[in-house]
Order: sequence, then C-alpha cells, then structure tokens
Amino acid sequence: MKSTINFRVRYQETDKMGIVHHSVYLIWFEMGRTEWLRQHGFTYRECEEKGWLLPVVESGVKYLNSARYDDLISIETIYIPEKGADFRFEYIARLENEGPILATGFTRHVCLANNNRIDKEATKQLKAIMN
Amino acid sequence: MKSTINFRVRYQETDKMGIVHHSVYLIWFEMGRTEWLRQHGFTYRECEEKGWLLPVVESGVKYLNSARYDDLISIETIYIPEKGADFRFEYIARLENEGPILATGFTRHVCLANNNRIDKEATKQLKAIMN
Amino acid sequence: MKSTINFRVRYQETDKMGIVHHSVYLIWFEMGRTEWLRQHGFTYRECEEKGWLLPVVESGVKYLNSARYDDLISIETIYIPEKGADFRFEYIARLENEGPILATGFTRHVCLANNNRIDKEATKQLKAIMN
Amino acid sequence: MKSTINFRVRYQETDKMGIVHHSVYLIWFEMGRTEWLRQHGFTYRECEEKGWLLPVVESGVKYLNSARYDDLISIETIYIPEKGADFRFEYIARLENEGPILATGFTRHVCLANNNRIDKEATKQLKAIMN
Repeated sequence: MKSTINFRVRYQETDKMGIVHHSVYLIWFEMGRTEWLRQHGFTYRECEEKGWLLPVVESGVKYLNSARYDDLISIETIYIPEKGADFRFEYIARLENEGPILATGFTRHVCLANNNRIDKEATKQLKAIMN
Repeated sequence: MKSTINFRVRYQETDKMGIVHHSVYLIWFEMGRTEWLRQHGFTYRECEEKGWLLPVVESGVKYLNSARYDDLISIETIYIPEKGADFRFEYIARLENEGPILATGFTRHVCLANNNRIDKEATKQLKAIMN
Repeated sequence: MKSTINFRVRYQETDKMGIVHHSVYLIWFEMGRTEWLRQHGFTYRECEEKGWLLPVVESGVKYLNSARYDDLISIETIYIPEKGADFRFEYIARLENEGPILATGFTRHVCLANNNRIDKEATKQLKAIMN
Repeated sequence: MKSTINFRVRYQETDKMGIVHHSVYLIWFEMGRTEWLRQHGFTYRECEEKGWLLPVVESGVKYLNSARYDDLISIETIYIPEKGADFRFEYIARLENEGPILATGFTRHVCLANNNRIDKEATKQLKAIMN
C-alpha cells in the first residue's frame, strides 16, 4: 500500500530563503500519487480517460526540515482506505531514502465522474481496484 | 486584523482539469500575508532585511469550489494572535468579493532570526507590531 | 496597440539567487496578453469558448536587470500585426512604470480551431478584431 | 558535450489546454544544465558555493509538439563553447528518447562572481572546466 519516488530538487523550486518553497510539496505529493497508482495497476491518465477525476478536496502539510537545490528527495506515498466517498493519501518527504524527514502531509480526494459530481459507482469501482 | 487582495487567475495557474491547481492557493495565501503585513505598517521585505524569517511550518487547505482562468479572485487574510512561538494566519479565497468561497486555509509560522533558529526576542517584537 | 499591467512580485516567484526566476517572465507576458485582449474588446476566455486557441509557437526573452520580491512590476504588451498565420506580441517588463527595463521579449502564436489545426478563417476573423 | 535526462510530465505542469505550459520548458532546460554540469565533473551547487553564478541573460524556445500529463520526456542538453563572456546551451525536448521533438531552445549565460558583476577570471576558469 505504499510506493516511493526519487528525484532532485529543481532550481526553480527554491525561493529567496534558499530553500524549497512550501507550495512545492503539494506538487511532489501529486507525483507520489501518480506513481502509487501506476504501481497498483492503472494510471491516473487512464482514470481521466474513463471520465473519472480525483480532485483534491483537502490538503495538509507539516514542514519539518528544509530541502535545498539539487538535494535528492524521496516521497513515500501511502493510500489509506476509508469508508464513504473519501480517498485519503499520506506522504512522507525525506532527504534521500533514509535521511531526515522534510515534511509529512495528506490529501483527501473524491471521485467525480463526467458530470463533475461525486459518483458512487465510480468511487466503488476505483476503491475496489485500489484496495 | 484582516485585509483583502484582488487579482485575476493566470492561465498558467490552471491545470488539465481546467481549474486552478490546488497548490496555487498556498501561493495566493502568501500574497495575502504580504499585503496583510503591508497594511499593518511594515513589509515582509523589511522583516527579512532585519534578518527575521517567517517560514511556514504547517499549512492546511479545504477546497470547496473551482476557480477558472481569468476569474476575479479575492483573498481575505486574517491574523490570529496566539501564545508562544506560533504565528497563525487564516485565509478565505472567494470568487469576486462577495462570491462563493473557493477555499479556506491556514498557515502556521515561526520567527527565525539570523542563525536560523526560533528567536524569542524577534518573536516578541514582531507580535507586538502585529497586534 | 499597447496595454500595461501592474502587479507585485510574489515570494514564490523568486529563486535561491534572490531574484525572480527567468521562467516567470513568460507567465507575466501571458498576463499581459490577457489584458491586451480585454482592452481590445474581447477576452481570451471568450476566444477559447469559441473553440479558438492561440498556443505559443515561439518565445524569446532578454534579461537585463533583476526583479526582487515585492517589487512593483509593469508589463507593457504590444501586438505586432503580421502577414500570414502568425500573431506576434512583444513585451517590456519594467521596475515600476518608468523604472529600468527588467526584460524584453516576444511570443509568436498561431490560431487553432477545434480540430487543433491552424485555421485560416479563425485567423482572419481574429486578426480583423485585433487590428 | 551533451547529456540527456528523462522524467515524466507532472500534472501541475499542464494547463487548461491540456498540454504542458510553455514556461515549463525553461524549467526543464535548467534541469538539463544541472545534469550536464554534473556529468562534466562538477555541480552547479558547488559553483554557487564558490560564489559563481550563471544567470540566464537570454532564452529562446520553439514549440513544435505538445507534451501531455505523464508523458515520458527526454531533454538533451548541449554546451556550445563560445568566445568572450558568454556561455551557451542548446536543448532538445523529445517525447521519449527517440520520439518526436517537442521543443528546441537555447539559453545564454554570463558568469558573475560575488560582487554580482561579470567576472573574467571566473569565466575563464569555468570555461576551462567545461571544455
């Protein structure tokens, strides 16, 4: 139920404090979700092609240490099965695979189908694939 | 204790879902803080020139409605006085000044001085200015 | 044939060099185009709703001076009528309205209609509106 | 004199047209430079730690095909030795390693030393390392 990705901090992701801007972690977490889904047998691209969307309805991040340009980052993504319409992912950003934790966070999602409303059937099917 | 800014959604802020990417709200909230501080008699730029930094140590956002390209956005920023080392800001993003709420959120900060550690004296002085 | 917009540099737009990242100017130029079109009687949003797209097919920027956090920026956008399928815009980014030039640049566009191909009729109609 | 990097398009890099925003290529090219330098024996991080900066003084991009979310991208970076103060890099962005060209571009740089002025000695030393 978890997957890990690795990549380097881009120069553009830093700000004048010399560290990665706090908004960037949400982008990294999204990359984590993309790979979590791929490792669980389907891609978010296919998901959207089916007309299913998984927009973020809530996010939270705790920032513990700073990341710097060219640092090697790992993002661990964990899917938390929940009842009801919600999909929950949790994330741990680290410096390298075993290094200090940079940030922890979560996102909560719902599954919309083509009419842009929460879709019970799509939710059920998607949860069945993800579990 | 609150201030409001207005601006239009940039094309680059949208994603393939056709709406503003969820990470962008943290950037908008930061713009809100910048103007809150300016309206309360000093700028964050001066703050940094003094060697004080106010990094984000926690963020949270609830996404209620979608914003689209060229929409007129308002961000209301509220400073919440707290005990101890923490600075807390809360935000309401709306479509136009009276329109539906797009998102609500908060950020929590601490005040670092030049040695990059939480600085009690700087915290005290800054809180005195902000209250 | 020209229009000007003003705004402040966002913290997130800076990088660890302490200045605005060079990629940001393309985002600012796009904001300039948005307002140029609005001031000439229609919006790019309406344009897209008609099924017309104006993707960038070429961009060029010369960076002359650095912009910093909270600087007041002006972007002057000039539409350059050209023969054929091309639409050309030129831009001047300045510190404040009369300050030093930060960057100059251009973008070249074509007009696609719904089939995502260059559309002669849409090009002609759009050029007629813009001239 | 060339190096190649591979990565996937992030969701956040797309815009409402459903394709990668044109400003993102400059960020990808910068990643290409970072790896080019690493493969040639030093890192841009070390470069900055020495007090040398290589800001972009000019950029140009031609956009030929669209990149989409989750596409596998390759960026080929070529360093072009030049006389005088200039450093020039050229880039080819492709869909996968052998796929269609998405964009081509260049950036031109100068080498500043600590006083933020073009530094002849640093330029000479850096060019000697890079050639």
